[in-house]
Amino acid sequence: MPEKWLPPIYWDGDAVMILDQRVLPHRERTLRCTNPNQVISAISTMAIRGAPAIGVAGAMALALGARNLSTSDPKTFKRKFSALCEKVKRARPTGRNLSWAVERVCAVLGENPNATVAELEANIRGMADTILNKDIVDNQAIGSYGRKIIPRGARILTYCNAGALATADYGTALGVIRAAYDVDPSIQVYSCETRPFLQGCRLTVYELMRAGIPVTLITDNSVGSLMCQKKVDVVVVGADRIAANGDTANKIGTYMIAVLAHHHKIPFYIAAPRSTIDPTISDGEAIPIEQRDPREVTHFHGRPVAPGGAQALNPAFDVTPHSLITGIITEKGLVNKPYSKAIRKVLED
Amino acid sequence: MPEKWLPPIYWDGDAVMILDQRVLPHRERTLRCTNPNQVISAISTMAIRGAPAIGVAGAMALALGARNLSTSDPKTFKRKFSALCEKVKRARPTGRNLSWAVERVCAVLGENPNATVAELEANIRGMADTILNKDIVDNQAIGSYGRKIIPRGARILTYCNAGALATADYGTALGVIRAAYDVDPSIQVYSCETRPFLQGCRLTVYELMRAGIPVTLITDNSVGSLMCQKKVDVVVVGADRIAANGDTANKIGTYMIAVLAHHHKIPFYIAAPRSTIDPTISDGEAIPIEQRDPREVTHFHGRPVAPGGAQALNPAFDVTPHSLITGIITEKGLVNKPYSKAIRKVLED
Repeated sequence: MPEKWLPPIYWDGDAVMILDQRVLPHRERTLRCTNPNQVISAISTMAIRGAPAIGVAGAMALALGARNLSTSDPKTFKRKFSALCEKVKRARPTGRNLSWAVERVCAVLGENPNATVAELEANIRGMADTILNKDIVDNQAIGSYGRKIIPRGARILTYCNAGALATADYGTALGVIRAAYDVDPSIQVYSCETRPFLQGCRLTVYELMRAGIPVTLITDNSVGSLMCQKKVDVVVVGADRIAANGDTANKIGTYMIAVLAHHHKIPFYIAAPRSTIDPTISDGEAIPIEQRDPREVTHFHGRPVAPGGAQALNPAFDVTPHSLITGIITEKGLVNKPYSKAIRKVLED
Repeated sequence: MPEKWLPPIYWDGDAVMILDQRVLPHRERTLRCTNPNQVISAISTMAIRGAPAIGVAGAMALALGARNLSTSDPKTFKRKFSALCEKVKRARPTGRNLSWAVERVCAVLGENPNATVAELEANIRGMADTILNKDIVDNQAIGSYGRKIIPRGARILTYCNAGALATADYGTALGVIRAAYDVDPSIQVYSCETRPFLQGCRLTVYELMRAGIPVTLITDNSVGSLMCQKKVDVVVVGADRIAANGDTANKIGTYMIAVLAHHHKIPFYIAAPRSTIDPTISDGEAIPIEQRDPREVTHFHGRPVAPGGAQALNPAFDVTPHSLITGIITEKGLVNKPYSKAIRKVLED
């Protein structure tokens, strides 16, 4: 494993640099994006993934695009930029942080009615930088609140990758685990491989091994058996979109783990910044669930595994009802039941 | 897909022919075994798998071995043959059918106290043939009892492969599905891919496509989401060992599906011949669970997927407690709760 830790996304002068997570952990390849379409493509092909990281990437794509609109007329700039905002928003549908980041960056236009194009460009870049930097600070805050819910010597189960690679750095669920490990090196982690994209196998195991945190890889279908053997003390996962009532969309399989945790009376926590919360959506039913190419299920590294012509489903996410969630760890503290009220309050803080 | 259906195991003269299921569905390679060690190796490396098929293979390995003991002294023959029986039994530990088949074949020795070596060889071969042929007949009986529990137009979820490939032919869970489809072509099947060996993806989808039965492949972690969307009417799976109280060992992940079915109030059935029942084991705790090489989880087609040095667990089976099982479909009919009594009765039939 390489010595130097590469952040998932960063500026190199005026280019957006994206660590291509599709080839991790065996290759470290960085994509140099000089126009927003390259960033959009990196998002939709999952070279960069994880709701907070996608939000940051969306903001940076807009900063990149703002420089290339070839106009000095603020009105033309605003029209073209708004169209770009819509395009970036559509790169992936389920994660809330992308539309949240786009809306924040787009708000710069309204907040600066008399600005020149050069001033708008600078303010947009400034907002993208704020979103990038705030994400790291927020994750550290999530970590410091979250570590309090981790019992001493806990065996923690996590799912998919809600780590440094899913954010600007540090991670949400893995931020909680990092912070807990800092004060209690006796904790251990189980990472589910997370089919079909194997983020748990390829990314979470990689991150935790680099951090020196003990981690054991399991297949997704082992979770029930492990819980039945009383080998899991607590579950911590990330989120892609949290509805106003606490219902939470996250990587396909999260709901299954929540039901299993409930059956075995194991606490089940979500760790996510407030930018993942969508107060305009009343409950999980209304969260759009991305359906991805069935080839991600039928093939592996481009080679067919299933018989030719096999039908397959490939929903990227599922929704866990709030009733199965023990608490939501945000950068402003732990959000407890009843969620509708607590979520309203945490968004006002 | 090839026209001709190859059975998973059959005699070609004096050789045991085993369809190598590790390379299905993309290649049809048959292993020609002329000594019992080759069959044992095919069992332990999962070239042939599925508890009933392993039982048949064990019996055929013994018939093969009986011919090669190079002695005309019945006493020497019996000693050497008993040692071979112990060796065959150890090829895989969890499935009951292997030890059941070995015990049945071995019983030939005691039943023929005055036989010559040639007579013993013939009787052993006869018993192996009986086990092979009876397995097919039993599966057809399981199918005809089992189809009655399948609702009209049902969307059936199955797991791993409990099909023709897991038996001598026809299948247990897939036997039920075949029999149901014969009378109701509006049924549909969801097949879970079944990590890490992908029996559901490679074998069940292949078998059902060949039979013309509509099948959709899903990742194992999609089961909860699919049930939550009310897209599953009934679950039917096979079994590797059933304890006297009905607790059932089956492919890792079966327990998870049973808990999810229970949570969503969906009937969960086991389909298995009586040779899978182990009356000497009182409950699931005592069933030995095979732990396989972690490389089956960390690697894919010999290529590493997880980071180098990653720790992984690879239990091949888990145990579903009888309380989560709606019924057990055997060749003598449906076994219902309370299981201890019903299982005793069905074994006496």
